[in-house]
Amino acid sequence: MDISLNKSTKNTLFQKIEQVRRRQGKVQDTHITLAHGSGGKAMRDLIDDIFVSSFDNPILSQLEDQASLNLSNLLQQGDRLAFTTDSYVVDPLFFPGSDIGELAVNGTINDLAVSGAKPLYLTCSVILEEGLPVEILRRVAKSMKAAANKAGVQIVTGDTKVVHRGAADKLFINTAGIGVILAGVSISAHNIQPGDVVIINGELGNHGTAILIARGELALETDIESDCQPLHNLVETILKVCPQVHAMRDATRGGLATVLNEFALSSNVGIRINEESIPVREEVQGVCEILGLDPLYLANEGKLVVVVARENAEAVLSAMKSHPAGKDACIIGEVIASPPGVVFLKTAFGTERIVDMLVGEQLPRIC
Amino acid sequence: MDISLNKSTKNTLFQKIEQVRRRQGKVQDTHITLAHGSGGKAMRDLIDDIFVSSFDNPILSQLEDQASLNLSNLLQQGDRLAFTTDSYVVDPLFFPGSDIGELAVNGTINDLAVSGAKPLYLTCSVILEEGLPVEILRRVAKSMKAAANKAGVQIVTGDTKVVHRGAADKLFINTAGIGVILAGVSISAHNIQPGDVVIINGELGNHGTAILIARGELALETDIESDCQPLHNLVETILKVCPQVHAMRDATRGGLATVLNEFALSSNVGIRINEESIPVREEVQGVCEILGLDPLYLANEGKLVVVVARENAEAVLSAMKSHPAGKDACIIGEVIASPPGVVFLKTAFGTERIVDMLVGEQLPRIC
Repeated sequence: MDISLNKSTKNTLFQKIEQVRRRQGKVQDTHITLAHGSGGKAMRDLIDDIFVSSFDNPILSQLEDQASLNLSNLLQQGDRLAFTTDSYVVDPLFFPGSDIGELAVNGTINDLAVSGAKPLYLTCSVILEEGLPVEILRRVAKSMKAAANKAGVQIVTGDTKVVHRGAADKLFINTAGIGVILAGVSISAHNIQPGDVVIINGELGNHGTAILIARGELALETDIESDCQPLHNLVETILKVCPQVHAMRDATRGGLATVLNEFALSSNVGIRINEESIPVREEVQGVCEILGLDPLYLANEGKLVVVVARENAEAVLSAMKSHPAGKDACIIGEVIASPPGVVFLKTAFGTERIVDMLVGEQLPRIC
Repeated sequence: MDISLNKSTKNTLFQKIEQVRRRQGKVQDTHITLAHGSGGKAMRDLIDDIFVSSFDNPILSQLEDQASLNLSNLLQQGDRLAFTTDSYVVDPLFFPGSDIGELAVNGTINDLAVSGAKPLYLTCSVILEEGLPVEILRRVAKSMKAAANKAGVQIVTGDTKVVHRGAADKLFINTAGIGVILAGVSISAHNIQPGDVVIINGELGNHGTAILIARGELALETDIESDCQPLHNLVETILKVCPQVHAMRDATRGGLATVLNEFALSSNVGIRINEESIPVREEVQGVCEILGLDPLYLANEGKLVVVVARENAEAVLSAMKSHPAGKDACIIGEVIASPPGVVFLKTAFGTERIVDMLVGEQLPRIC
C-alpha cells in the first residue's frame, strides 16, 4: 500500500474495501427512494440489478455515459441513419396484451421501421416516482428486454431519474432509437400521389380499447388485447416486393384519422377511405358506440398505414398477408387530387363525411 | 373535384378547406391542455408553433416520425457513433445562470463530448403537466435553441406527451444525442493506470448551490450561478494536444466524488485527491458548511474530470487553461495502484479520509 495511515484508519479502510468487494449490485430496497436517483451507490445498484442484468449486452455493460457504435458496420447496412424518440406515459402500466415496457420498445422500433429503417439500438431513460415498488420496475425491464430480443435490437445506454412522490405518476419511459435505412428507399409523408392506394395491416382500435377497459372505467369484460407489436419485419417484407413505397406510418395516438390527415396535408392531396373496408372488431365497435368514440381516432400500437402506387398495391397486399403481422391486411382507400388536405370517409350508407384531425383529446395517456 | 356531394355537404366541405388553409400552426391556448398530447390538431399546432419554429432546421421541419441522417457524412467525421440519453427533471425550471432547456441540451452534449465525440444531433421529448403555461414552454424551447446554436448541434426530432394535472411536475425533458468519435480516440473509465493524473476544469458545486438557493430553502442571497455549459470544444482542445486521454467524465449528479469512485471501480485502481487543490468558491463552501453538505458531492453542469498519463498532464493543463471553459483548470490528484476501488482525500489538515460513493440523496431533482 502506497499511503501511510494510522491503525484505526487502516481498519476502517479495510472494512470499506471489503464492503466494496461485497457489493453485488443488488437493490436493497423494496420501493424506489430518492437515493435511487442520486447518482450514487443506490442508483448504481439499481442500474446494475435492474437494467444491466436485464438488458445484458456488452455495450451497455461498459456503463459509460454513452454507447459507442462502429460507423462502418452501420454503413454496410444502408446509407442513412434514422433517429427517433418517444416518451411513454401510458396508464395503467400493465394492460391486456402488453405493458409500458414492451410498448416503449415496440413504439420506437415502429417509428424507425416506418422510414424503412432496420432498427438496431435503443436507449432507455426512466423517470420514477418515489415509492414505486422495485418489483414493478423489474417486471417492466424484463418486458423491455423480451421485446428487444424478439425484435433483434439492443438497449445500449440509459438514464434514471427519481422525483418526489406526487411529482410523477409511477413510471415514465423514454426510448430513443437508431436504425439504418436501406439505400434507394425513400418513404415520406410528402411522397403521396393522386391515384395511390391506402393499405392497412389489420383491425383498428384494439390498443385504445384495451387501455380503456384496463382502466376499469367501463364495467365490461372483453378479450380485447392491445395490438402492441414490432412492425419492422412486416416493413422489410413490403420493401422486398416494393422498394418504392410512397408513405408509411404507424397509426398510434390519434389513430388512422390523424395519420391520413398528416398524409393529406404533407402531400397536398385528398384521401378517400371506405368505412366498409376498414377492419374493426365487433367488440371495439360496441365500446365505441357506448362511449361515443370513433375507431378511426382510437390508438393502435401495431398498425401500419401504407400508401403505394396503384400498380404495386396487389403485390404489397399479398406480401403483407404472407406475414403474421399483416395477415388481415386490406385496401381501405385511395388518394385523390382534390380537394387537397382533406380526408373523406365513404360511410356504409353510401354518404360521405369529412374525417378531420382529432380536435380535443379522446383518451389521455394512451401510450 | 372528383367526388359527388350534395350542396350542404359541399358548403361544409369548403368551410373545412378554408379552415385547413387558415391554420397557422399557432397555439390557441394560454395553458397546456390534454388535447396538446392527443396526437391531433392541438398537438400539431403546439409542435409547429413552439418546437418547429424555435428549433428551425430542415430535418425537423419534415415532421416525419424520425430524422434521417446521411451515414457517409457521419463517417467522414470519425469512425464511431456515440449515442446517449438523459431525462431532465430539475426543479425549479429556471434558476440562476441557466434553465431546464439549456441544461437538457448541454447535459446531453457533455455526455457525448466526454467520449471524445463531436456532438451533432439531439432529440427533444417533453412530458408536460396539464395546466403548464404555454409561455413557459416557449421560453424553454427558445433556451434549447440558443444552447443548440451555441454548441453547433441540431434538434432533429421530438415527441410531446401531456399528463393530467398532478401526474407530473410542470415539465420534464428528455434529450437523446448522437455524435461522432474521431478515429484513434479511446476514452473510457476502464483505461486508467496507476501514476495517471486527475485534472478538473474549474470550481465545484456551483450548479448544486444555485439550485438550492433558487428553491428558496435558504434565506440567502448570493451571486452563485449554475456552471451549465457545453464542454465539447474544451474536449476538442484537449484531444488536439493529447489524443490518448485515458478517461473523461463530466461531474454532474453525485459530483466529483461519484465520478472518481466510478473511475476507481471501473479501472480497479485507487485515486488520491488533495483537498487544497480542489477549487471551491467561498460562498459554496459556506452554504455547504451551513447545510452539512460536501462540495465533492454537489452537482455540476460544466465540470470536466480528465485523467491522463503523467507525461501528458502539463500539456493538457495548459491547453485547458487556454480555453474559456478551462481557464481555472488544475491538477487535483493522482491514481495509485492500491487499494483498488477506493478514493482518498488528503485534507487541508494533512490527514486522509475515504471519499465513498454518495449514499442516500443530497439534493433531489438537481438535473
